Amino acid sequence: MSDPTPGDGGAVAAPDTEGRVLTGFRPTGPLHIGHWFGNVTNMVRLQADHEAFYFIADWHMLTTHYDRTEELPGNVRSLVLDLLAAGVDPQSVTLYRQSDVKEVAELTLLLGMITPLGWLERVPTYKERLRDMAERDIANLGLLGYPLLQTVDITIVKGELVPVGEDQVAHLELSREVVRRFNRLYGEVLVEPRALLSRAPLVPGSDGRKMSKSLDNTIDVRDDEDAIRTKVRSFITDPKKVRRGDPGRPEICPIFALHELFSHDILEWTEENCRSGALGCVDCKTNLADRIVTYYAPFRERRDELDREPHLAEDVLAEGAAKVHPVVDETMKAVRSAMSLG
Amino acid sequence: MSDPTPGDGGAVAAPDTEGRVLTGFRPTGPLHIGHWFGNVTNMVRLQADHEAFYFIADWHMLTTHYDRTEELPGNVRSLVLDLLAAGVDPQSVTLYRQSDVKEVAELTLLLGMITPLGWLERVPTYKERLRDMAERDIANLGLLGYPLLQTVDITIVKGELVPVGEDQVAHLELSREVVRRFNRLYGEVLVEPRALLSRAPLVPGSDGRKMSKSLDNTIDVRDDEDAIRTKVRSFITDPKKVRRGDPGRPEICPIFALHELFSHDILEWTEENCRSGALGCVDCKTNLADRIVTYYAPFRERRDELDREPHLAEDVLAEGAAKVHPVVDETMKAVRSAMSLG
Repeated sequence: MSDPTPGDGGAVAAPDTEGRVLTGFRPTGPLHIGHWFGNVTNMVRLQADHEAFYFIADWHMLTTHYDRTEELPGNVRSLVLDLLAAGVDPQSVTLYRQSDVKEVAELTLLLGMITPLGWLERVPTYKERLRDMAERDIANLGLLGYPLLQTVDITIVKGELVPVGEDQVAHLELSREVVRRFNRLYGEVLVEPRALLSRAPLVPGSDGRKMSKSLDNTIDVRDDEDAIRTKVRSFITDPKKVRRGDPGRPEICPIFALHELFSHDILEWTEENCRSGALGCVDCKTNLADRIVTYYAPFRERRDELDREPHLAEDVLAEGAAKVHPVVDETMKAVRSAMSLG
Repeated sequence: MSDPTPGDGGAVAAPDTEGRVLTGFRPTGPLHIGHWFGNVTNMVRLQADHEAFYFIADWHMLTTHYDRTEELPGNVRSLVLDLLAAGVDPQSVTLYRQSDVKEVAELTLLLGMITPLGWLERVPTYKERLRDMAERDIANLGLLGYPLLQTVDITIVKGELVPVGEDQVAHLELSREVVRRFNRLYGEVLVEPRALLSRAPLVPGSDGRKMSKSLDNTIDVRDDEDAIRTKVRSFITDPKKVRRGDPGRPEICPIFALHELFSHDILEWTEENCRSGALGCVDCKTNLADRIVTYYAPFRERRDELDREPHLAEDVLAEGAAKVHPVVDETMKAVRSAMSLG
């Protein structure tokens, strides 16, 4: 599933792009610009010409945030409204909450019986997460099983295409291996998913590292104008460009990386005048902040409207559950029958 | 859960024996004498003065027999009828099939999020199984998670007492640790189970090793008279007692170990005359076979009657499911609420 890190906002690159799309989103907190260009814009784009299943991966959140479940209900509601305001259309896609599909747990248990530990242990993100979150207590069975849970999310709705960034390819490869093993053991029941490989735009945070909530370097999509301006001002820039007049290097400047996302109207001008030194960083940041504010203004307006409907998120999720259940029932009936289970 | 190995047929030894009893039985094949004295007699005894939940652990069977699921339906039916014929009373106990309680999978997934891998890896039976079944391909996530699945079986019905042999104490200790961790994180929701420690009688097979299907050294409880006599004759005895007249050592003889279970009427006589040499092994085996045949005759008769009711097992399991579901629903409602899950 999409982690709260930039993923796959770029153009769809895979040649084989027909089929049912499945992607999930962990409700770990406010959406930031990295999520937006990594996942959200992609979800909006894909719904136009694909049958799409999008889900709120609340059980996945437990793999790293099991000790913060009190945040879950608020995060789930907020994420649903964010997606709606961003343009995800619950009439056109199936938008549901993972934990509303209890069969996900059943299939996880069943596939766990045929998934070698070695396959899970060698998924690179497993060790990365253990390392990145060393100060927290997450070396649990659930974290090791994370890619298997993803496999189930995909196969239980017969997902065929999974938008992934480069760093998620190993996860999907595991999913394909597990599906093949199941089908070899019990017959051709599960659908082997394919990666919808996307070039993720690099979305740096205020410190130049990848934008990420845990690094406290984000600009959130629901930040108000003041917050956006303050945060943009706090970004590092080319350390060799100390004052206006000094030539800058856009290619290493996180502010310029954001200009590439928000400032198509002045992108060339910004690059030229940064390099020449004519443009100072203070003005350059103001230009960027103006554009981020403008870009998200309609989103924030829609989002505020949606926020006034207290039951909207739950209603949307209930409709999504009703839409996803027949698909899941069909898969599980076939799985149980193939395994001679009651 | 009780494995298809002798477990706990001896007298209840724990001082604290009040509470709801939970035990499971893997449907891995025909019941043998080891199961009978390890588990079945205990189940019959405990139902008299305890509220008892007994279940057919079909999902557990997958941890080691995932490639033999075609045997499952027959094994499940057979095990249910065996238990009924042995005296387990489905009116008095709740007798159900694990896979009919899908919430077991949900709670397994949730508890997996807070169960350290290290706790599971250090359960002794995990490495033993890997070693004992080295020729088979079972180093899967499901095998590692086995003790967690047991934990769920117990806690999902608020089981308080779990009959265990010495070799299962580590499993139950893990269950207690997981329950404590859950309650510490989310509030006092789950019940900490206690071991109902029992002295298991040693039930040796024909080769003198522990009676076990995988060693092909069993006498099955539904063997007919001819099979019983043939199998008893095939048992090894004291290798120093070659012919009648040679003194024997009952304490190392598997036939005498079975006499201790079946031959109360001639136990002292057998011991004396074996030691003196007056009793030859051929006669001694005939005496044992006579008693095994007699012991199981009423069971086999009842079992044959039950076998003529084609829907009995399914009906009993359906009733059991109806009885267990309200208990499970109550637990899961409390669990989800404590974890702020929908």
